[in-house]
Amino acid sequence: MNQQIRTIADLDRVIHEPGRLMIVALLFAVERSDFLYLQHETGMNKGTLSSHLSRLEEAGYVEVTKTYRGKVPQTLLRLTGAGRKAFEEYRRKLRKAL
Amino acid sequence: MNQQIRTIADLDRVIHEPGRLMIVALLFAVERSDFLYLQHETGMNKGTLSSHLSRLEEAGYVEVTKTYRGKVPQTLLRLTGAGRKAFEEYRRKLRKAL
Repeated sequence: MNQQIRTIADLDRVIHEPGRLMIVALLFAVERSDFLYLQHETGMNKGTLSSHLSRLEEAGYVEVTKTYRGKVPQTLLRLTGAGRKAFEEYRRKLRKAL
Repeated sequence: MNQQIRTIADLDRVIHEPGRLMIVALLFAVERSDFLYLQHETGMNKGTLSSHLSRLEEAGYVEVTKTYRGKVPQTLLRLTGAGRKAFEEYRRKLRKAL
């Protein structure tokens, strides 16, 4: 297996999946985001976005905080330090491989 | 949806899948390859590799030729013009998005 192929084989699949790649790229650019903003920007329905966020939370890449804005429940999302690092690493590998 | 996110959303899923990305990257670098070489280079088992190649063939990205080397059956794989173009486009988009 040559170096390029090994790099592709080693890509972080949690981040590589296009739906999650969109979410991580969006969160990478901001301090934090709420669920509705992510939904609007990705065009995903609630279930799909929730499912991707759960996967990212399990991986330790995204921190989910449930709070209130006045009386309205709000879900805030933030990329963790591990998440930022994983995205940078993913980007570095992909650039190298392609 | 911002431009970066739209670019990620529009990525060619046939090529984006890591197994197929390995195959396409390998075939992009050579004129043609036989099945066993691809199997060795990707580390995939026969079934997985066949399944990815079928998907690439359906998309018109890979041409599969069954032939003989002496009396031994041989399967030759080649990236089509459309496949080369799709890979270049995929690479261009991904670089732009990341």
